[in-house]
Amino acid sequence: MHKKLFIPGPIETRKEVLEKMATPMIGHRTKEASALQRGISDKLRKLFYTKNEILLSTSSGSGLMEGAIRCATKKRAAVFSVGSFGKRWYEMAVANNVPADIFAEEDGFHTDPKKVDEVLSTGKYDCVTVTHNETSSGLTNRCDEIGEVIKKYPDVVWCVDAVSSAGGMKIEVDKWGIDVCVTSTQKCLGLPPGLAVCTFSDKALQRAKQIENRGFYLDLLKLYNVIQKKDYQYPSTPSLPHMFALDYQLDCILEEGLENRFARHKEMADYVRAWAKEYFALFPEEDYASDTLTCVKNTRDIDVAALRKALNERGLEISNGYGDLKGKTFRIAHMADLNMSDIKDLLEQINDILKF
Amino acid sequence: MHKKLFIPGPIETRKEVLEKMATPMIGHRTKEASALQRGISDKLRKLFYTKNEILLSTSSGSGLMEGAIRCATKKRAAVFSVGSFGKRWYEMAVANNVPADIFAEEDGFHTDPKKVDEVLSTGKYDCVTVTHNETSSGLTNRCDEIGEVIKKYPDVVWCVDAVSSAGGMKIEVDKWGIDVCVTSTQKCLGLPPGLAVCTFSDKALQRAKQIENRGFYLDLLKLYNVIQKKDYQYPSTPSLPHMFALDYQLDCILEEGLENRFARHKEMADYVRAWAKEYFALFPEEDYASDTLTCVKNTRDIDVAALRKALNERGLEISNGYGDLKGKTFRIAHMADLNMSDIKDLLEQINDILKF
Repeated sequence: MHKKLFIPGPIETRKEVLEKMATPMIGHRTKEASALQRGISDKLRKLFYTKNEILLSTSSGSGLMEGAIRCATKKRAAVFSVGSFGKRWYEMAVANNVPADIFAEEDGFHTDPKKVDEVLSTGKYDCVTVTHNETSSGLTNRCDEIGEVIKKYPDVVWCVDAVSSAGGMKIEVDKWGIDVCVTSTQKCLGLPPGLAVCTFSDKALQRAKQIENRGFYLDLLKLYNVIQKKDYQYPSTPSLPHMFALDYQLDCILEEGLENRFARHKEMADYVRAWAKEYFALFPEEDYASDTLTCVKNTRDIDVAALRKALNERGLEISNGYGDLKGKTFRIAHMADLNMSDIKDLLEQINDILKF
Repeated sequence: MHKKLFIPGPIETRKEVLEKMATPMIGHRTKEASALQRGISDKLRKLFYTKNEILLSTSSGSGLMEGAIRCATKKRAAVFSVGSFGKRWYEMAVANNVPADIFAEEDGFHTDPKKVDEVLSTGKYDCVTVTHNETSSGLTNRCDEIGEVIKKYPDVVWCVDAVSSAGGMKIEVDKWGIDVCVTSTQKCLGLPPGLAVCTFSDKALQRAKQIENRGFYLDLLKLYNVIQKKDYQYPSTPSLPHMFALDYQLDCILEEGLENRFARHKEMADYVRAWAKEYFALFPEEDYASDTLTCVKNTRDIDVAALRKALNERGLEISNGYGDLKGKTFRIAHMADLNMSDIKDLLEQINDILKF
């Protein structure tokens, strides 16, 4: 039995999108392949509110995050973490000998722009990484406010993990001054996993040019250079199925309208948050709770595994807490193409199982 | 109009395989996901004639090649190159600060086991990379003979690029002593691009454990550890569509029978080689010509671009020469699920266009 996915990726994928994954193959060095990648890039520029170049990577979002921190750090990276995926930036730096320090908040608490200012004012850092939407705790940082601070430091290249928010929340890349904004297909974009994308500013480009040992497969400069040299092609063989599906889905997203899409995500989030507060509590600071997934604090100490199993039997799937938060929280994603009716049905089923 | 692909990846993909790419999503931390990856691994062990662990990577083959050379080299890597994809190993080493030397043959000439012996006898190297099948020149190295030499050096970890041969030619990983054998889905396995796989020996595992800065996303040790810890799962979110399709296609491959499959590839190769020798010439040394793609030397100085265009108009696609060999050669792939009837039709069409 198929289980409808309310987990923060892979997300429930529409039949029409899945069918595009089955498009017959084309050569990746053809004009058709160039047109495909160019079309995707043009549409993603709208989604990210940017004029910057768009890079595609056949990898998960982690792949591009790793490429980004390697390509953006010449001196030292300041990693601002609000959870497991924030820490991942730091692990990536360490695993590649990239000098970095981590400034971590307790799970559920946001990155304070003042703290970013304080850290950057030391002059030690030329790269900053921030998690826009932390998938482990359901928290959204205010990247507009953080961006205002970072603008004071013209040598700093700013990388943002928007893996679980891009396409579900408004991210104004150019206005906020983000240099590299990373996302992947299996979250708010509503595709299967297997492809990651990022924006790439001129500042990020100039920085990458100054860095040796950027790696090969995940090297953002190489991705950029091949786009220029081969008219929107990819250094190796990209996942064409994901590109066909993404191209189609971006048309659907733009047809829905970005503002409408963001409003739909917020409406679902408001509904799930109200439910969470009625029966449990929100895990993250309420003012920073995410519009794409809700992390519920397990204040009743319910057996999360048992709840998930009971939901599975009804054809529904939610997530346990991530890492150390397993059992202490559970997570409900309300992203991509899910709608209010899906969410209402899910919560009714949970209420029924928990006898609320 | 769809063009039937005779290029060395992406390759013509059967409708049934494409349809599996459209399988509805599942959670990547579920028992179903574990069963899927375990099943694929068991079947790939048969294909590679190995008892070693199988690693999956959501990337092109290049991604795993990069991970392999980083994880396998503690002292210095000896890169034996017979063309563009051989050189790629060296570029990967340089881009990651991995000490390496390249020993390159002229395009079209094989790696001599004696030379490997000579180089290794210096004691300078603890990693060797060899291209099994060079996609740019249509040449297959004799990895059985090279393996006999490498066995004399127990400290050497041996990485093989079998991207354009695995599944189309017999590669006896355990018998030949290969530590890391890399391939990707869009060649002889007959799937769309977007996933890479490799074998991973205990020697490679022990070596990786001694190395820091293995990177993150392409780190073979991390891929291995998550398989052990989470019962055949993947560190980040893998390309589930490729996994569904690969699982299905491996059943088909094993049903065809590996020996039958290799024989079919050889029969197609013999036919194309005979044609090439009648009208042009083989580019690589004849005794080392590949069974999965034929690189034809353009002895008649035909306009390759014009030939390709004319074939396109008839719904067929072949490849130009790769890199510097563009125009000087052209390439016909006979891999994956193509058969003699496809090949005969293609060559008839070429004969018709070229008025042979």
